[in-house]
Amino acid sequence: MTAETPTRRRRTGGRKGHADRAGYAAIDQMPWRLIRNTDRPTEPLDEDGVQAIHRGAMHILGQIGIEFLNEEARRILGRAGCRIEGENVFMDESFVMEMVGHAPASFTITPRNPERQLIIGENVLTFGNVSSPPNAWDLERGKRSGDFETYKEFLKLTQYFNCIHFAGGYAPEPIDIHPSVRHLDCLYEKLTLTDKVAHAYSLGAERVEDVMEMVRIAGGLTHAEFDATPRMYTNINSVSPLKHDHPMLDGAMRMARRGQPTVVTPFTLAGAMAPVTMSGAAALSLAEGLAAIALLQYINPGCPVAIGTFTSNVDMKSGAPAFGTPEYMRATQMTGQMARFYGLPMRSSGVCAANVPDGQAMWETSQSLWAAVQSGTNMVYHAAGWLEGGLIASPEKFVMDCEILQQIQRYFEPALWATTEDEIGLDAIREVGHGGHYFGCAHTQARYQTAFYQPFLSDWRNFEAWQLDGSVWTAERAHRTYKRILDEFEAPPMDDAIRDELQAFVARRKEEGGAPTDF
Amino acid sequence: MTAETPTRRRRTGGRKGHADRAGYAAIDQMPWRLIRNTDRPTEPLDEDGVQAIHRGAMHILGQIGIEFLNEEARRILGRAGCRIEGENVFMDESFVMEMVGHAPASFTITPRNPERQLIIGENVLTFGNVSSPPNAWDLERGKRSGDFETYKEFLKLTQYFNCIHFAGGYAPEPIDIHPSVRHLDCLYEKLTLTDKVAHAYSLGAERVEDVMEMVRIAGGLTHAEFDATPRMYTNINSVSPLKHDHPMLDGAMRMARRGQPTVVTPFTLAGAMAPVTMSGAAALSLAEGLAAIALLQYINPGCPVAIGTFTSNVDMKSGAPAFGTPEYMRATQMTGQMARFYGLPMRSSGVCAANVPDGQAMWETSQSLWAAVQSGTNMVYHAAGWLEGGLIASPEKFVMDCEILQQIQRYFEPALWATTEDEIGLDAIREVGHGGHYFGCAHTQARYQTAFYQPFLSDWRNFEAWQLDGSVWTAERAHRTYKRILDEFEAPPMDDAIRDELQAFVARRKEEGGAPTDF
Repeated sequence: MTAETPTRRRRTGGRKGHADRAGYAAIDQMPWRLIRNTDRPTEPLDEDGVQAIHRGAMHILGQIGIEFLNEEARRILGRAGCRIEGENVFMDESFVMEMVGHAPASFTITPRNPERQLIIGENVLTFGNVSSPPNAWDLERGKRSGDFETYKEFLKLTQYFNCIHFAGGYAPEPIDIHPSVRHLDCLYEKLTLTDKVAHAYSLGAERVEDVMEMVRIAGGLTHAEFDATPRMYTNINSVSPLKHDHPMLDGAMRMARRGQPTVVTPFTLAGAMAPVTMSGAAALSLAEGLAAIALLQYINPGCPVAIGTFTSNVDMKSGAPAFGTPEYMRATQMTGQMARFYGLPMRSSGVCAANVPDGQAMWETSQSLWAAVQSGTNMVYHAAGWLEGGLIASPEKFVMDCEILQQIQRYFEPALWATTEDEIGLDAIREVGHGGHYFGCAHTQARYQTAFYQPFLSDWRNFEAWQLDGSVWTAERAHRTYKRILDEFEAPPMDDAIRDELQAFVARRKEEGGAPTDF
Repeated sequence: MTAETPTRRRRTGGRKGHADRAGYAAIDQMPWRLIRNTDRPTEPLDEDGVQAIHRGAMHILGQIGIEFLNEEARRILGRAGCRIEGENVFMDESFVMEMVGHAPASFTITPRNPERQLIIGENVLTFGNVSSPPNAWDLERGKRSGDFETYKEFLKLTQYFNCIHFAGGYAPEPIDIHPSVRHLDCLYEKLTLTDKVAHAYSLGAERVEDVMEMVRIAGGLTHAEFDATPRMYTNINSVSPLKHDHPMLDGAMRMARRGQPTVVTPFTLAGAMAPVTMSGAAALSLAEGLAAIALLQYINPGCPVAIGTFTSNVDMKSGAPAFGTPEYMRATQMTGQMARFYGLPMRSSGVCAANVPDGQAMWETSQSLWAAVQSGTNMVYHAAGWLEGGLIASPEKFVMDCEILQQIQRYFEPALWATTEDEIGLDAIREVGHGGHYFGCAHTQARYQTAFYQPFLSDWRNFEAWQLDGSVWTAERAHRTYKRILDEFEAPPMDDAIRDELQAFVARRKEEGGAPTDF
């Protein structure tokens, strides 16, 4: 294969100029923008179906109960009037619906760069990087355990692509950093290499408190300013079926008290941790999600929350999880209907079961991303870089996924379906007439530079031109692209005093031993 | 790479049994079924937008005119009251709408095997093979000109896959057969190797008449029986902008007189043969399509027709066509709205610009296939096997696309969003309780064999199992699958007398010199 010779745009301006420009030099990408999803959602359930799933969720909450493996949470819910039996908590419908009614239908999250502020809710669609895979894979190095250097590479990709709106969990998990201080090193890199909304793992008191403090410092905020509005977010998963564990609840309650958002995402694989039917799995997932949301709303009424779905199916031959399947698409769409029923922002994911960034990876990922669009999802986790059911972070896959994400961004630009007289262009049609062509006419010349989506990775040349240039398949092109991006990456600007304060905080907390690791 | 050792199901029954079985032995596939698209279409245009595009199309037809390069067609349209200037024909709105009003909103096509009858219209979604590429490509042989042996391989794939509903144009074009007799050899193979609805090229009198006769013979029909109901179909393309050529119009008029369906599909690449704006390109495409439909409805009011869209964009740097883009998706959705406005069945396509069956091929194809779903398309041309903007037919791509088509079929099974009490499964949720699993419970055991889509090509094993088995990427797996299918292929049954009659017809027409090649 011969080397590609991409057209590189000259960069202008210093470091300060980066945030304002559409892209760096390695590729010509679309500008940062919050996407407004103006499509009517795809809704498989009729009104009876919505009510049936709601009744199912309420029955689970009221009659079967959710175990809260956290004494403080049970004490609070007991005070709220819930019936407690051992670790099991029963919530009746009126309590749940009253609490859910406190939750805002939308909220903002403002990171250290206020130009990267997100709206979570309304019809806004946002994308985040793959989060939490223990391993990495790329074409050159193959599969290997996650490490800190690779983690930083993915942070750079996360920052680089304008179509990635928030910096999610670790990708990959850097197991070469001791768990007691991993959050300190990881968040330091995340807050300096990116200026986007940051995620914090909800793994016990110390980590959550440390990360909130670091986000506050990075933003140059007082404690009051931090508490005044969402600045970061966490995500908690239930231990399906029907349990919430101690550290996740602890972290979420701490976040809620300071007005910071929690996404509650049960991980319900139908046929394994949930009923084999998609409506049953969705009802179980919603019950688990609403239980935690009711707790957080009781603690701090009106605090920002979102409901997540991770409902998919397993391969019934092997028990292996499957993603981006027809069942996954319908479960996501149904959960979207229920999120609108409860008035909550929604999270879903960009996922696949494939082990390498090949054809299967892309049809499964396409199906999960378009299901996110169809469901009215507000936050798409794992939107770039996910392989092997979430066990692998891949830079090639990251770059390939961003080509799809940009196309979704473009898909929602109203110019695509505008029908003014000028756009229908009857004068041009008359001018070109019968059998002519439109390349040269004024109507085309005035628009051709912005009329169509311009890919950075797709190769639209004919076979012979593509062959002459080395017959490079998509994954290999993505490999070259990600390396060019890393070569040219420059971190977003940060005030030296803030950087010093962050470093001092990390150093002090390391001296103190970081966080306990016995959770 | 080590050889895969797929589980092969034992076949039972003789040749006669094939049509009744869900699949052959090479793979375990879904059964033949007409898909009911129950999703609400995605509609970017509001009512004003629909009216604006309609007004644009009517202005083109009434004020700019469409050239009909066929004297007979012009004579007929003159008799109908249209204004004729040279080759240009002007149709006013009342004439167009009266003619379009004659067209049926849906119709059936019944091939020689009546169990393969199609409904074209309503909310039925049907898929056809890639049609008309001049070249073939596979992993072993690379790119090469189309030939007769390869053409037969694609017919076998077309017949084999239950998710392929109709046998479209030649894939690839067999250039080793002289054009004067190509249609005879090709249709003989199509009508014996498949029993699905067959396409005829609309390339002049002799070819169309020959193919109608061969379809009649293959079906064991009298002339009256053939004429009584649709038995086959053709597709005509305009020469955009604003022209219909002689042979295509000739063939379409012959088909219309015998009550056989014509799909009219302008090939309007925005920025090249159509305005650079998607609404302008759609208006132009609709005007060209409605012009031919008005002609056919005047000739035989109520004859079956469908409106096709092939509106996409070009790469404004190179002029190369692009497919499966955001612009393509929106143009397809808008055309779907207009097809419903005019009450016509609709055709779109499964397309991509990629040269090989890699990641790009699958995201572009996924986007075009899901746009077909979102637009309410009834016939999806090129749904399996298309590469390089239609210049290549690939068997690996065919197999990969069929995995997506099956998932779309599965996506529309109502079980996926059923919400009866039994499906929500509160008893199972109570039985499994907190922290258990659902693999063994009765609710799962009663359903696990049919609960989820079972892929034939996707590999859902974890990385290590996949690696131990040779690290085979999707395209290579598809290569092995297509070879297994060809190895085991058996043609559908045909009565010996009918086969003899077809052979005799082909022999006689060859003796007569076939069709003229000076069109």
